This record gives sequence, structure tokens and C-alpha cells, in this order.
Amino acid sequence: MKEKLVIIKVGGKVVEEEATLNQLLNDFAAIQGNKILVHGGGRSATKIASLLGIESQMVNGRRITDAETLKVVTMVYGGLVNKNIVAGLQARGVNALGLTGADMNAIRSVKRPVKDVDYGFVGDVEQVNVSILGDLIKKGVVPVMAPLTHDGNGNMLNTNADTIAGETAKALADIFDVTLVYCFEKRGVLKDENDDNSVIPQITRAEFDAYVAQGVIQGGMIPKLENSFSAINAGVSQVVITLSSAINKNEGTKIIK
Amino acid sequence: MKEKLVIIKVGGKVVEEEATLNQLLNDFAAIQGNKILVHGGGRSATKIASLLGIESQMVNGRRITDAETLKVVTMVYGGLVNKNIVAGLQARGVNALGLTGADMNAIRSVKRPVKDVDYGFVGDVEQVNVSILGDLIKKGVVPVMAPLTHDGNGNMLNTNADTIAGETAKALADIFDVTLVYCFEKRGVLKDENDDNSVIPQITRAEFDAYVAQGVIQGGMIPKLENSFSAINAGVSQVVITLSSAINKNEGTKIIK
Repeated sequence: MKEKLVIIKVGGKVVEEEATLNQLLNDFAAIQGNKILVHGGGRSATKIASLLGIESQMVNGRRITDAETLKVVTMVYGGLVNKNIVAGLQARGVNALGLTGADMNAIRSVKRPVKDVDYGFVGDVEQVNVSILGDLIKKGVVPVMAPLTHDGNGNMLNTNADTIAGETAKALADIFDVTLVYCFEKRGVLKDENDDNSVIPQITRAEFDAYVAQGVIQGGMIPKLENSFSAINAGVSQVVITLSSAINKNEGTKIIK
Repeated sequence: MKEKLVIIKVGGKVVEEEATLNQLLNDFAAIQGNKILVHGGGRSATKIASLLGIESQMVNGRRITDAETLKVVTMVYGGLVNKNIVAGLQARGVNALGLTGADMNAIRSVKRPVKDVDYGFVGDVEQVNVSILGDLIKKGVVPVMAPLTHDGNGNMLNTNADTIAGETAKALADIFDVTLVYCFEKRGVLKDENDDNSVIPQITRAEFDAYVAQGVIQGGMIPKLENSFSAINAGVSQVVITLSSAINKNEGTKIIK
């Protein structure tokens, strides 16, 4: 029987403000057993880039990463945000280790090919190093993963944090019983986006398709759920979409195979 | 018999310029066996701080680290410089892992007490985690250590890279036969600072004291040699002061017990 592993993905907003970060670190520290934290940091990156006179250009919600922007995200995600979380978890007795994909070759990616849009130094994940991550986790180490990978040729690449979490969950499902928790600013997938109490408690692929056809689920929620079903289909035991303040509560929307 | 371990400390200038960085990474990759790279990054920190409108204040060659400066050095040392080196080493087949003192509690420090000068968020090393570093190294992982530690209470602390290298060397001398190499911009300790060919090939404590009394060795060289003798006295097998371009050559000044 596989050991359990919980992978929590939190967005930039939660980890960039002291009050919400402290709450998250307390909640995350309280999770028993094997765990991984994957974080964003986009708001800080935009702010620091702006102070450095670098304009942040977004297409379809994704950051265009030119050479100067790559430096900024490497600093902000891999340094400022990641180390702040690691130090905070260590203070709470969690043996955190900050990782980018370059560290111990944890995640190798390939620079996204230019099609309609040139995203620049953005990585599409090719391989998650199951052996190295598995060894660390089984020793009680808690990886704190920044949304950065490398191409194996010496270049860091900016990589979406949802993707890091999803690909890591899929790869580690070979050796762990994985629960993947996507945190965001809503209580779950809502039937009515204006009613926070309209959380859909669980959803199958067929139900998802029906909700999309009806227009109940739309916009940015669609790729998030597509990612979730992809994870479930690749062997992840459970995917949950919930509030970051609810990672220890049995709330949110469960994605069911 | 203890396994050998080589610890190389390089300053910011070497790792911040592409040509010298590539040369260093090639030379470091060529070192056989167990190894650690400790790096600085002060020039980049000063440059980024300046772009962000934060003035860099130095006292006795040390950076006064206020809260904003701490953010800058955490970004620059832990993110930009560290990950660039890690990705570069991975491309050369070295299984590099970037670490600050917070990661896996590798190095815990205490905020320097305020005496004549308030250095701010600067850490004096209290404990190097020999067990965790030893385990990694024996598995073939190559730590790449940024000049940052943590206080165990959630705070990162800025910590001199020479100190990181020296304290790590001393602590790991318990389980390894350690050679510590301090790289700097001269070929070694010089008898005549204007003559690069006047390298003192080896130096004992008694000779050092005599050179200081004669005024041959002075200025910033004195604390560097004091650190070196401290390492030798604490069980480090060999300390070498040399050029970063000479880490694979039998050059520079050897510090002898």
C-alpha cells in the first residue's frame, strides 16, 4: 500500500501578504505526513519588475518572459518568496527545502515553442525526478517548490505553478497515494459565481461537461478543471479545489474520476 | 579513513560575469569527488538595490542589512545568483542543489548583537547541520550555498560567504577530510602586493605573525588568514588562498598548521 502524500498549491496572493502567509504556514504545518507546497509569486514579480523599470506583459493570463523578466522571476520566486516560506516553515518545525526544477534536476522542461505567441523563457514540463523527490519526502523533507524549472542546458525557465503542482502530482502518483489541492480565492467551483455558498461539493467529468455546456462553469475555471481531470486520469487519487484557508477542512470541490 | 571533500568559496565578481562564471563552472565541474561551492553576490545586490532605490551602506566592508536590504539579498543571493549557478552546473553533469541556511535547517545563525555598529539582519553562524549536509554529499549531491542563513524563528539573515565556507568546512571536518579553497582576485598571499609573482607558497601561524609585524601582510588579508588558521585549528586538513581560475592548479598560498 502506498504512503499518502498531500500536494498543496497556493497562488501568489496568499504567500505575499504576511497575515495570509502566516495563516497558510500554520495550516500547512498542521498537515500530518508527507507533503509538498507549491507556490506562485506573480504579484511580487510584477511589483519588483515595475520598480526595476521592466514592463510586465501578460497574454491569456500568462507572463511573457523575456531575458530581464526571467531574472526577476528567478529572484522573486526562487529567492524572496521561496526562502521566506522555507524559513517560516522551519520555525514551525517543518523540515522545508526550497526547490526550483534546477535543484537536483527536480523538474526538467523544454522552452515553449513559438506558435501564435512567443512566451519567451517559459518551460513546458518534460520530466519530474520521481526518485530524488521520493527519497527526500520519505526522509521527512518537505519540498517547497517555486514555479521555475530548467532546460538542462543551463537556462532557468518560468513555469506555471498550477502546472508544477499537477505534473509533480502525476509523477509522484507512481509511488504515493496523492491528494492534490488547488487553492484559490473562492470556496470551490461555484454554481453561481456571485454566491459563495453555491459550492459544487464533487464533480465528475460528465457533470463538468454538462456544466460547461450550460455556461455554469466558464472562463479560468475551465483550464483549472481540465488540469484536475488530467491529474485524476493519470493516477492522482484525489483533486480538491478550495480556499487556501480551508486546506485542513473537508470543504471545496472534489474532482471525481 | 575519511572521504575527501573540497569546499570552494568564490566571491561575487566571479559568479556575476558570464565569462568568468562559465570558466568557474567548467573548473568546478572538473573537480572529482565530494565538493561544495559557496558563493557571494554583493555586486549584484548593490546594483539591484540601487535600481530599487535602496542605498547600500557598508561598514568595515560589511553590508548594513535593513529590512528592505534583506529582501534584496534574499532575492539576489538565494534566487538570481544561486539558481543561475545551479542550472549551469546541472548542464555540466553536476548534481547541484542550491541551499540557504534555512533549507533543511542547513545553517542556523543568530542575529548579530548590536555593539558599536548595528549591522541589522546579519547572522552569526551558530550551527551547521552536519548530518543533513553529510548525507546529501555522500549521495553525490553538490551543495551550492548562498550567503544566507536563518534564525530558526522565521527570519532569513545575511551572512558573509567566507564565514559560511569556513564554518561549513570546520563542521564537516568531523566526517570528511576537508580542503577549503578561498578564491579571490590575487594569485595568493603576496610578499609584495604590487608583484603578482611574489606569492608566498605556504605559511604557518608563526610566519603569519612575523609577516604582520613586518607590515608585509596587512588590511583585508589579515581577517582572511585569521579565518584560515581558525579552520586549520578546528580540524580542516588544508586551506588554500588562490585565484578562482586556479582551483584545479596546485597554486596559491597553502595555510599550514
